[in-house]
Amino acid sequence: MSTPNTATESVVDATRQLSEDVTRPLPGSRKIWVTGSRPDIRVGMREVEQSPTQTSSGLQANPPLPVYDTSGPYTDPEAEIDLTRGLHALRDGWILERDDTEELADLTSEYGRARRDDPELASLRFAHIRTPRRARAGRNVSQMHYARQGIVTPEMEYIAIREDARLAEMRADPRYADILKRHPGHGFGANLPEEVTPEFVRDEVAAGRAIIPANINHPELEPMIIGRNFRTKVNTNIGNSAVTSSVAEEVEKMAWSARWGGDTLMDLSTGKNIHETREWILRNAPMPIGTVPIYQALEKVDGKPEDLTWELFRDTLIEQAEQGVDYFTIHAGVLLRYVPMTAERVTGIVSRGGSILAKWCLAHHQENFLYTHFREICEIMAAYDVSFSLGDGLRPGSIADANDPAQFAELQTLGELTKIAWEYDVQTMIEGPGHVPLHMVKENVDKELADCFEAPFYTLGPLVTDIAPGYDHITSGIGAANIGWYGTAMLCYVTPKEHLGLPDKQDVRDGIITYKISAHASDLAKGHPGAQLRDNALSKSRFEFRWEDQFNLGLDPEKAREFHDATLPKEGHKVAHFCSMCGPNFCSMKITQDVREYAEAQGIDANEALKQGMEEKAVEFREMGAEIYREQ
Amino acid sequence: MSTPNTATESVVDATRQLSEDVTRPLPGSRKIWVTGSRPDIRVGMREVEQSPTQTSSGLQANPPLPVYDTSGPYTDPEAEIDLTRGLHALRDGWILERDDTEELADLTSEYGRARRDDPELASLRFAHIRTPRRARAGRNVSQMHYARQGIVTPEMEYIAIREDARLAEMRADPRYADILKRHPGHGFGANLPEEVTPEFVRDEVAAGRAIIPANINHPELEPMIIGRNFRTKVNTNIGNSAVTSSVAEEVEKMAWSARWGGDTLMDLSTGKNIHETREWILRNAPMPIGTVPIYQALEKVDGKPEDLTWELFRDTLIEQAEQGVDYFTIHAGVLLRYVPMTAERVTGIVSRGGSILAKWCLAHHQENFLYTHFREICEIMAAYDVSFSLGDGLRPGSIADANDPAQFAELQTLGELTKIAWEYDVQTMIEGPGHVPLHMVKENVDKELADCFEAPFYTLGPLVTDIAPGYDHITSGIGAANIGWYGTAMLCYVTPKEHLGLPDKQDVRDGIITYKISAHASDLAKGHPGAQLRDNALSKSRFEFRWEDQFNLGLDPEKAREFHDATLPKEGHKVAHFCSMCGPNFCSMKITQDVREYAEAQGIDANEALKQGMEEKAVEFREMGAEIYREQ
Repeated sequence: MSTPNTATESVVDATRQLSEDVTRPLPGSRKIWVTGSRPDIRVGMREVEQSPTQTSSGLQANPPLPVYDTSGPYTDPEAEIDLTRGLHALRDGWILERDDTEELADLTSEYGRARRDDPELASLRFAHIRTPRRARAGRNVSQMHYARQGIVTPEMEYIAIREDARLAEMRADPRYADILKRHPGHGFGANLPEEVTPEFVRDEVAAGRAIIPANINHPELEPMIIGRNFRTKVNTNIGNSAVTSSVAEEVEKMAWSARWGGDTLMDLSTGKNIHETREWILRNAPMPIGTVPIYQALEKVDGKPEDLTWELFRDTLIEQAEQGVDYFTIHAGVLLRYVPMTAERVTGIVSRGGSILAKWCLAHHQENFLYTHFREICEIMAAYDVSFSLGDGLRPGSIADANDPAQFAELQTLGELTKIAWEYDVQTMIEGPGHVPLHMVKENVDKELADCFEAPFYTLGPLVTDIAPGYDHITSGIGAANIGWYGTAMLCYVTPKEHLGLPDKQDVRDGIITYKISAHASDLAKGHPGAQLRDNALSKSRFEFRWEDQFNLGLDPEKAREFHDATLPKEGHKVAHFCSMCGPNFCSMKITQDVREYAEAQGIDANEALKQGMEEKAVEFREMGAEIYREQ
Repeated sequence: MSTPNTATESVVDATRQLSEDVTRPLPGSRKIWVTGSRPDIRVGMREVEQSPTQTSSGLQANPPLPVYDTSGPYTDPEAEIDLTRGLHALRDGWILERDDTEELADLTSEYGRARRDDPELASLRFAHIRTPRRARAGRNVSQMHYARQGIVTPEMEYIAIREDARLAEMRADPRYADILKRHPGHGFGANLPEEVTPEFVRDEVAAGRAIIPANINHPELEPMIIGRNFRTKVNTNIGNSAVTSSVAEEVEKMAWSARWGGDTLMDLSTGKNIHETREWILRNAPMPIGTVPIYQALEKVDGKPEDLTWELFRDTLIEQAEQGVDYFTIHAGVLLRYVPMTAERVTGIVSRGGSILAKWCLAHHQENFLYTHFREICEIMAAYDVSFSLGDGLRPGSIADANDPAQFAELQTLGELTKIAWEYDVQTMIEGPGHVPLHMVKENVDKELADCFEAPFYTLGPLVTDIAPGYDHITSGIGAANIGWYGTAMLCYVTPKEHLGLPDKQDVRDGIITYKISAHASDLAKGHPGAQLRDNALSKSRFEFRWEDQFNLGLDPEKAREFHDATLPKEGHKVAHFCSMCGPNFCSMKITQDVREYAEAQGIDANEALKQGMEEKAVEFREMGAEIYREQ
């Protein structure tokens, strides 16, 4: 197993390895590692360097700002990336030491074995496939199970450190004092702790209010948590389709997603070689990977929903669970009796999974087999710690269809299924809409929290209008910021190509940054204790004309620099006290700054002087005015 | 005056006339004209054609959809555009027949005369400058004045027709029945009538809840209204700066803004030849034009705020009023005593006008001259019907500074000034922030409505986070959708280049479309009676795979088509029942459609069949399944 298979290498060559696009460090940043209670808990973060503030009395240092980082090893210049070997399995030791799993003698899935043994697939196959693990008989290996036993796992401690992002240290460090100021939030009942402890993580997972998607067969992932009392997360979707795209492009998109801040990633491939594509992605993914197993099941029956069977679906679940998929979208709430409720809709059923199952139900006139076999599914999930993402197969696909009886009937069923999943200690989140006008968004969160017992909500958008194809990252980013504020734990991104075509890399970047904005806006509004730090640091740098810092503290430093340099490309302009928008004489920040600096230079406490309103100070200002104003 | 001045032509040549970019009609659309109670009230709208729905029983026509249109004559192939002559003065007759104005013998502004008489400016100057009009002595020519006298002006009738956008006709026409369905809104006290009548317009203007910016010296404009009981409007900003841009580019940007949906436009030029640039823009602008007169006043004193005087400012106001500027941003609420309240802020004063006046106040240790001369300003505004946009000079420039005492102190002063303006029947709107986290947005609207007696609110964004330079159209579009929903009447757009540089044409388009989304999302949420029609029509076309209609009903048909064609360029794909996102077998809309169509083909009422849940129908579905599913 030590020499890469040459056929595999040719696949990797075809990907041109990973491009510099996805591996170069973010500007002005370095990767840091925070160690926990044991040396193998090392949490990666990014630290943004800042340049000093120029004051009349000299330079005043600005401390580096640690930020939550999803990029894994990809932006670490120290890391050696070898796609053919996959990432370091950081959770291997943790899983082994729990001593509740066993290495299987062979793949359990018939289909998995057939793919492995098909010589025609050799050139496509990831070479270093590991032997899968499974819970020992009678054991349950879900993080929820441990949490309910009172066990704080290394994953939970990792997450506590990660979520905190050094906030506790910054609070104790006077250099951060001026950027720690924050508004109280309004969280609609969210319970955001001032400090995230491992015990808090455990408690939230035990209560079902948060999940840690972490399949024991995906030891490479960096643990993360989805729950409304933590940072709002962003899911990205990639995947090939029958029309376009290839394995190579999908792996590159995964790393690209990690770079820009995707917290989890769904592989929604519906084209060829889904099994092999997924293996490449999983072995190289630092984030949890989700799938919709019904897509692959449908491929196996040549796209005929009516030919789907429980047995075939079950084999698909196990096939994917043994590869390491961390969460499955399961459309078990699309009940036969709900299907007719969609007949009068403007856009019927728009969930792909939902429509497949609706068609199956109608064709057989039987209840959805995912619903009737739900307990068996729970047993499989618990054996690998795969989390549920209970799919909203009847979500509205247009403003007209928002919050209708079909949608809310399904939501109630998802609540019933949540309770069953929890009997098996299976971690569960609930998917949500869709297309919803702004004033009807909150009802979705309120109903979800009530009907599904505060299981984390995971929503697609919602799009707040249907009339902007080509800009649906924005129509949905608006809804996402609001639904996140109201209590959604994870936002599923939408790209500008939504409704129009398969997104390319630029679309993925636009979609992720939009959703990072929405998630951060939610965190600020809820009053997440660490959220406003970055806004404060960036605004301070903006006010002080530290252009490089303003770029680097932003969500997309490369875009900010590119936009700035479009009109003022010279390096000297990076310290200029203006930009091309207003020019040197009309920059209000410069004017305000001038007033303060003048006061400082003259030994005047500007604030005090102004409050006292002393005429002589006014004269000084006036005399100084002309020179400082034109100094550029 | 009939032969164009050759010098002028050279300026126009330099603009390459207007590009095809800004003049070609929007795809699938035609300009229509709706005539009011008299033949000279002809309201331009756009009508989007739709292709028929294919049903098993043949083609079923879809009616054209009328939409509110801001593009004026620029997208009308019948219109002859001659930039050197300007647009047709559609309001000339209305202004004359009121018989309360007089043509002046000469320009009143000293500066205006000097510019006119400077031979060096000949090559820059618009040739056909009209002689300005002013209210006769003792008369007041504001729309608010007429409204309060009980007079319904032609402008008000024009607006009623325009706002209604044929909704009354569509309600009476059975072809529109299936797209008239709508959700009740939640308007936070807004009073949106089912039909906008001229009398309703008059009443809202009389009450000060809405304004019609319409200077008697800008007879070319197509009347529009700004008020929370009407469609939410979008303002766009253009303008040169000392660093870049030219007259030519600004005129092109104005037409570009009209094309994409800008309802009003502010010329924020701060560079050279502000006077001449403005004349070119005004004579060719179908929308109201606003300015910030202090910018030009500052240019006149070489950028030294302390050298500004009331006399010089007054001359600037009159200069611009006689050119036809429709609304002035006046920062009369930046009081001396408020300036110290900004000293502890993270980003001080970020309004350009605010910082200029703050500096003046400090330098002279005197009260803001715009405040002390406010009644004289009102007299000037009333004589030309210029509307106030009372500037928020102390708006927050960062999340940290949101909703602080400085901001709200100024807002109270703006309320006091609103009352004074209304004594003079001067139409008034109030500017708002800025940077505000989501949960603190509503307080801004509530306070504005209370403190300023429901005068229309006109807000910049607000940006809901500071951390995304390069994407501030999105950070602010999120805030804009929310603040519009809560009751803001007009949203001032922000482009992706905000904080980084001067926007180019692409940035302007991105900014406008983002804000059209926010405004429309607000209208849907408030429950505007005509808003959901377009969503319904577009979603129906999407569901029926009428790709061309989906593109054309959207806010940016060209972008939607471009995105679609990036992966499926062939014309045949415009009728395909899938796109590249999911491919032919995974399109959920196609599956749902198939189910319904099959039922129809078999003479089954799908809804009834499903409700009855008859097994034999299920068999038919099952047998049919395989073929229809693979038919593409």
